Amino acid sequence: MLNPAISYTRITRVQDTLVTDTEDALAAEEPLEIRLVHGGQQQSITVTMRTPGQDQELAAGFLFTEGVISSVDDIAEINYADNIATVTLQKNVMPVLQPAQRNFFANSGCGVCGKTEITAIYAPVQVAATTIQCRASLLVKLPGLLRKQQAVFEDTGGLHASALFDNEGNLLIMREDIGRHNAVDKLVGTAMQEKLFPLHNYILLLSGRAGFELIQKAAMAGIKIIAAVGAPSSMAVKMAHEWDITLIGFLRLQRFNIYTGEERITV
Amino acid sequence: MLNPAISYTRITRVQDTLVTDTEDALAAEEPLEIRLVHGGQQQSITVTMRTPGQDQELAAGFLFTEGVISSVDDIAEINYADNIATVTLQKNVMPVLQPAQRNFFANSGCGVCGKTEITAIYAPVQVAATTIQCRASLLVKLPGLLRKQQAVFEDTGGLHASALFDNEGNLLIMREDIGRHNAVDKLVGTAMQEKLFPLHNYILLLSGRAGFELIQKAAMAGIKIIAAVGAPSSMAVKMAHEWDITLIGFLRLQRFNIYTGEERITV
Repeated sequence: MLNPAISYTRITRVQDTLVTDTEDALAAEEPLEIRLVHGGQQQSITVTMRTPGQDQELAAGFLFTEGVISSVDDIAEINYADNIATVTLQKNVMPVLQPAQRNFFANSGCGVCGKTEITAIYAPVQVAATTIQCRASLLVKLPGLLRKQQAVFEDTGGLHASALFDNEGNLLIMREDIGRHNAVDKLVGTAMQEKLFPLHNYILLLSGRAGFELIQKAAMAGIKIIAAVGAPSSMAVKMAHEWDITLIGFLRLQRFNIYTGEERITV
Repeated sequence: MLNPAISYTRITRVQDTLVTDTEDALAAEEPLEIRLVHGGQQQSITVTMRTPGQDQELAAGFLFTEGVISSVDDIAEINYADNIATVTLQKNVMPVLQPAQRNFFANSGCGVCGKTEITAIYAPVQVAATTIQCRASLLVKLPGLLRKQQAVFEDTGGLHASALFDNEGNLLIMREDIGRHNAVDKLVGTAMQEKLFPLHNYILLLSGRAGFELIQKAAMAGIKIIAAVGAPSSMAVKMAHEWDITLIGFLRLQRFNIYTGEERITV
């Protein structure tokens, strides 16, 4: 049986000057919408980017840890189909939805998890044409250049970083934050204020993993080459392909994987 | 000048049987509320847990990467005070707020970032009294026991894990997800369905860093000992203290840091 938590893709592996076409396993990432049914009414509560599997447990756990329900006994049944978990409460159980959480614009910090319908997770990305290329020999040096600047991470071990480089390896902007999406938003906000837009000719380096929301934020800013020190998710790869972005993962001193857009990398 | 991205705290460092009282640097984590002013009206857009600093850039970048504004020129001014960034748009600029993002219950996947007012980030935690204790010699073995079970991470390098242990080292539940909050929600949902509640007598192990929302989710489930392989944030430590939870960080084979509740750990 296929494991729904794993997704396979063809990649180009670069090790020194050795280039190999191979298969790679990705952590699966897909949106889950959680709906609540009570008193004959149904409402969308949230969308979260998650790895498929144990979706009923995820819905039940989410409603409990957020204080919406107070016991597993509040739940009559949970149905799951097509990335939607529908939780029906027992008669006479009233979910606790704080007044402050209603009737507000429901966008979110990471751009995904506060949205309440799956279609709302997509921002209006415009695919940019560009001719930027980057040498593999330069790419592998970027994490080292970033680390030299990452003062707060050195002290705390607790921050994600994002950095903007030109394709000669000059570091233009570096931002750190406890939330990886915030690190990218801070970088993009700084680039806007410094009138660097659009960012077609720069390389975005991520200190950790690359999920869907980071790819989308970078795509909104016109970035065409994204290199992550960690692993990309399945949806990151899918959307990078759709938006014609070069996506690099597991970037190390002597190797990296190219998931999409290998024509922009010269070995 | 103090760096707002770093917060200092007293910790107990345990290395083998050596116990030291020392100071440790934490990555600062605080909520930021982003408000939008347009057409004479003000509305809260989101709350994100972030590291203080470059908050105006964060607000500008967020509004742009989420498609709410289309250019830095849409912004007349950004004011920041007390964890609130207020973005005033130029006259005649209309923000793009999708219909699907209005008038819905604005909870979120991670329990924080979809909320639109800072006061809404807190779930109704009830502080539990408990007598659970855990030996240091057992604690240091838990990451190894978790890793043996983490099949998907082995293949993809892309998943966070959370695991529930009893204080004899038996692994009761392990869940993996691309979102660390989802891994905890899946674990809590499973524990609810298996009637293990309340979880006062178990230890929660986190494969990565520990931020505020994970501590809150664990607190809602009654967990009293949380051990993270990575770094905790400043707000994780603050809330663990407030909710009388033992918080361990940087858990390795021969050492770890105790941030709060050291009376539950025996060396």
